[in-house]
Amino acid sequence: MSEPAPWKLLRTRAERDFRIFTARTLDVADPRNGAEYVRTVLACPDWVNIVALTEDQRVVLVRQFRFGTWSNTLEIPGGMVDPHETDVQAAAVRELEEETGFVPTSVEPLGISHPNPAIQTNRLHSFLARGCRRVHDGKQDGSEDIEVVLAARAEVPRLVQSGQITHSLVLAALLYDALGPGALR
Amino acid sequence: MSEPAPWKLLRTRAERDFRIFTARTLDVADPRNGAEYVRTVLACPDWVNIVALTEDQRVVLVRQFRFGTWSNTLEIPGGMVDPHETDVQAAAVRELEEETGFVPTSVEPLGISHPNPAIQTNRLHSFLARGCRRVHDGKQDGSEDIEVVLAARAEVPRLVQSGQITHSLVLAALLYDALGPGALR
Repeated sequence: MSEPAPWKLLRTRAERDFRIFTARTLDVADPRNGAEYVRTVLACPDWVNIVALTEDQRVVLVRQFRFGTWSNTLEIPGGMVDPHETDVQAAAVRELEEETGFVPTSVEPLGISHPNPAIQTNRLHSFLARGCRRVHDGKQDGSEDIEVVLAARAEVPRLVQSGQITHSLVLAALLYDALGPGALR
Repeated sequence: MSEPAPWKLLRTRAERDFRIFTARTLDVADPRNGAEYVRTVLACPDWVNIVALTEDQRVVLVRQFRFGTWSNTLEIPGGMVDPHETDVQAAAVRELEEETGFVPTSVEPLGISHPNPAIQTNRLHSFLARGCRRVHDGKQDGSEDIEVVLAARAEVPRLVQSGQITHSLVLAALLYDALGPGALR
């Protein structure tokens, strides 16, 4: 059973920089027959998210208005790795603190996934944080309006099943957590 | 604890139609103070994916080359709901048959998530199919090169933990499955 052969990249061109991603058009050639196709991908920085547990085993969630779905969502904290950041775990801890004011005593990796390998270049790094304590009210920029919600860890499956947590990338992190933190190392 | 107020949509403009999504720029106003911001969203059709079980409890997986990550991935079947399709379950069964040639005897919904509520408008509808039997070799278009891989259902957590299945949207479907099919209805 042989793996599909990698395609040949003929040329790429940037279409437009949308700040959070750059649309890029690829001319590609099928390795089987040389047939050429045009494909669009979104070049994005890596993303992070974090399952953050308080000392009393509550999960730190954030509720905020999202422009894609034009609705409020309930999520775990997360965001983009900044261009200057080389430590993705530090980026996840930074997002947690900026969005919620919570700071952990320990952090471990849960897993690395690809938000959409068909069209996005980037990875999602998911983490588990323990012993989180709130040290301030969060450092949100002017356009952010984030409400912190604490839920018992045992309640999270119900929040998923009842459709209160619907962000696919949050679900990916929760699967890693469900399969056992630390199992990936 | 009040929910964040919905933002005011001032105007939108289509930036570019990339076939699989349309980049759209929104001018929005913060409901708290009227401050205006520009945000980009990707208008996409809804997506589907499907955990397909054979009669002997194996999961039907597909391996294919993906242009976003420029690598082969191992995924459950899935794709876009076509513009004329009103039945998302039928769309999932169609994708399963097109990509693999497998046809199920029964299908049930697993859950509806949002691939990226921050920037995408669309939903992901995940399904569980049972009693799948291969009736042909799949109906791939010229540019597709999909290899069918059958894995024991009990092996799937290991495929996730070992980094062989990394597609975040597949992980979302697997979480729904892990929480118990049918629990959402």
